[in-house]
Parts: sequence; structure tokens; C-alpha cells
Amino acid sequence: MQSITEKLSKLGYTLPPAPAPAGSYVPWKRSGKLLYLSGVLPMLEGQLTHTGAVGEVQSIEEGQEAARICLLNALAIANGALGSLDKIQQFLLLNGFVYGVSGFSQSPAVINGASNLLLDLFGERGQHARAAVAVAGLPLNASVELQITMEVTD
Amino acid sequence: MQSITEKLSKLGYTLPPAPAPAGSYVPWKRSGKLLYLSGVLPMLEGQLTHTGAVGEVQSIEEGQEAARICLLNALAIANGALGSLDKIQQFLLLNGFVYGVSGFSQSPAVINGASNLLLDLFGERGQHARAAVAVAGLPLNASVELQITMEVTD
Amino acid sequence: MQSITEKLSKLGYTLPPAPAPAGSYVPWKRSGKLLYLSGVLPMLEGQLTHTGAVGEVQSIEEGQEAARICLLNALAIANGALGSLDKIQQFLLLNGFVYGVSGFSQSPAVINGASNLLLDLFGERGQHARAAVAVAGLPLNASVELQITMEVTD
Repeated sequence: MQSITEKLSKLGYTLPPAPAPAGSYVPWKRSGKLLYLSGVLPMLEGQLTHTGAVGEVQSIEEGQEAARICLLNALAIANGALGSLDKIQQFLLLNGFVYGVSGFSQSPAVINGASNLLLDLFGERGQHARAAVAVAGLPLNASVELQITMEVTD
Repeated sequence: MQSITEKLSKLGYTLPPAPAPAGSYVPWKRSGKLLYLSGVLPMLEGQLTHTGAVGEVQSIEEGQEAARICLLNALAIANGALGSLDKIQQFLLLNGFVYGVSGFSQSPAVINGASNLLLDLFGERGQHARAAVAVAGLPLNASVELQITMEVTD
Repeated sequence: MQSITEKLSKLGYTLPPAPAPAGSYVPWKRSGKLLYLSGVLPMLEGQLTHTGAVGEVQSIEEGQEAARICLLNALAIANGALGSLDKIQQFLLLNGFVYGVSGFSQSPAVINGASNLLLDLFGERGQHARAAVAVAGLPLNASVELQITMEVTD
């Protein structure tokens, strides 16, 4: 069976180093089977790849790319927490926050960037519940933030 | 003992068909006793009933009606997941997102539309923790979105 | 071993009375080891201490103070639910909502007000995952809202 890390690589992705928290918190906490990840931004090599409002400064497609990079950061955290992405049993809830101007209504299309990559990587196991909203602003002026809760195994 | 579905009907409500997800996600995920529902919109027969900012395009009362319809959609998902609403043990957290212009402060009054219906339907068992905020925008320009986490039994 | 309440008092803080909900919900719900708190506002003696947008009406430092007061309210709820703050095993997820104008990017600095106090009070046990965003508006025009999920013991 192909590991998720092999699948990532086959799809042309590499896990970034797990991101440093933007404040006084830790990247994840675990209670039993539940793993709560902190909010993640579109960060590569310590730099944000996408800033500004989606639909204004960033196109929907760029927002989707930002969401994918957020997801890679989330997976990097999970990998650090668990030792292997194969220990993720299922994704429970993905909260997607898109920085948008008042009235921005396309948060689902943007967050699909992350959701589709989850499905590509994990197959049926990548299915997740989700809530997407547009917010007035995100940390460091990031375009997208994801917060994920998952079920894990030892 | 009256079932929740009978209670719904007595109060003049009908469960809508479970809503189709607005993106690449599934309506719910379950881990043990925890059931995580995806964000739900005020949707009836595949159409949004309330769009635009509450306090601007929609009155507070219309926002409350939107919140009630969101709740019916959430219950439709739970009913599909569990086979019966009677398998809901308790409601843990209801996240209420209201689309409002900057400074909109009446999200609690709007989300009460859903909270009060939960109490009417489930009595003491309908009590729930809650967080309500106003956001810059919602999927498909919806006026209200709810995301609910509940405890369920087999 | 010093109790958390003693630590609070040593740091010059007092638990406020547990806040009255701003709507038709209850302050907390528990499922097994998980305790879900409702969203809390910067409330002292029944009055909001900080209203208006952070970065506009309130400075970042005032926002941090608001976040600290939110946290004290959350702890007051947990204390009421558990009988003692010493029964908090770990903090799982802190969702920080900052009322800010469009483009407000400093929610992490604001929410650090709460995060740092958690660490001061609970030490390593105060570490938590976190997601911070800026929203268009908060209940009663509050400047900050926190929603916390924790693991507790009997």
C-alpha cells in the first residue's frame, strides 16, 4: 500500500517544514483519538505565498492555491505530531476562513483547493465535513486560513 | 414518548431533504459519539431563502427565520446520518455565522432563531453551547450559516 | 501544589462571576472528557469593558486586555462547570475572534493577551492549539470573543 507521503510526492508536492506558530500557542493538541490542529496559513519557507483579499488582490484560482498550501502546512503539523500521515484515520472538520471584502460569497470555491487535494491524497479517507466563511482579515494579511480537526490512531 | 419528528410536525415544520454540499466535502463525519456536521445554509428545495447582509438586506426577524431554516437543514443531515433524530443525545457546540456589514452586533438575536427552535424541539436536551459572530460573507451570499457538533448514540 | 485559583490571585486576577449567556444557549456542554465552552466576551460586572473595532477604536494593547478578560470569563464558566480549575487537564482549541475593520491583520497579537495568561496560569498545561481571525462584528459590539474547547477530568 502506497503511503500518503509517497502519494504526495507522486502528485508533485513536498511537505513543507511544520510552520512556526504566529503567536503564543502550539501547532497541535491531542485528546485520545482527536487531534486539533492550530490555524494554518499559506506559508512556504517562512514566507506567506498569498496575502490580501481573495476576489480583489488574489483571484479565486490563486485563493485555491493558497488553500492547498495551507493544507500542506496542516499535514506537516500532523506528520510532526504523529510521525506519519498514515496514522490519520479520518478528517472530521475543516474550517476554512477566506479573507474577502464585505459580501465575498465564493469561499466554497476557494476552500475546494484544499478539499480536493485532501481527496486526491487520501481518497475516501480524505472526505471531511467543512464550514467555509469569508472574514474581515487574517493573521499577517494572509488570504486563507484553515483549521482542521481529525481522528488519529497510534 | 413523542419522537422529535412528531414534535417537528406538531410545530408545523418538515425536514427538508438533506442539502447537497456546496463544495468538495461531505455533510457529516462521525468519530465515536461525536457527530460533526458541515456548515449549513438557509436552503429549501435547492434554493437559498435568505441572501444578503442581515441588518441591511434582511431584517433581524428575517435573519432569525434564516437561522431556523439552517437548523432544519442541519437536522436533515443528522437524520440522514443517524436514521432518527431521537439518536441525538445532546448538542455540544453551535457555531453561528451571520453575514453582516462591518460593525454588525446583533448576531446573538439572529442565531436565537435556531437556538429557540432547538429548545422547542428537544426541550432540555436541546440546550447547547454556542458562539455567534458576524462575518464578511457567506457561501452563495447566504445570510446565515450554522455549524453544529453533537453527541449521538447508536 | 499551588491551585490555579491561588495562582490567579497571585497574578492579581480574580475570577468574575460566570457570565450570563447573551442568547438562548448555555455556558458549557460536556461530552465525556471534552468540555465545550460558549463564546465569551470581555465582560466584568455585567458590562463590556471593550467595544468597537480593535486597531480603530481600541489599540492592540487594549485588545489584548479584552482578550485577557474574555479568558477570565471562560475560566469562570469552567470553574462553575467543574467545581475547580484544577480539573482542567489540557486546553485543546482556542478560537479567537477579533472585531476589526476589513484587512485587520493583527488578530494573533490581540489573542496573545489570552494565550499568554493561559501559559502564566497553567504553565505547560496551558499550551493550546489556536485559530485567530478578524470578523466583521461581535455580539453587543464587543472587541474580542473567545471560544474554548478543553479536556477535563472528574
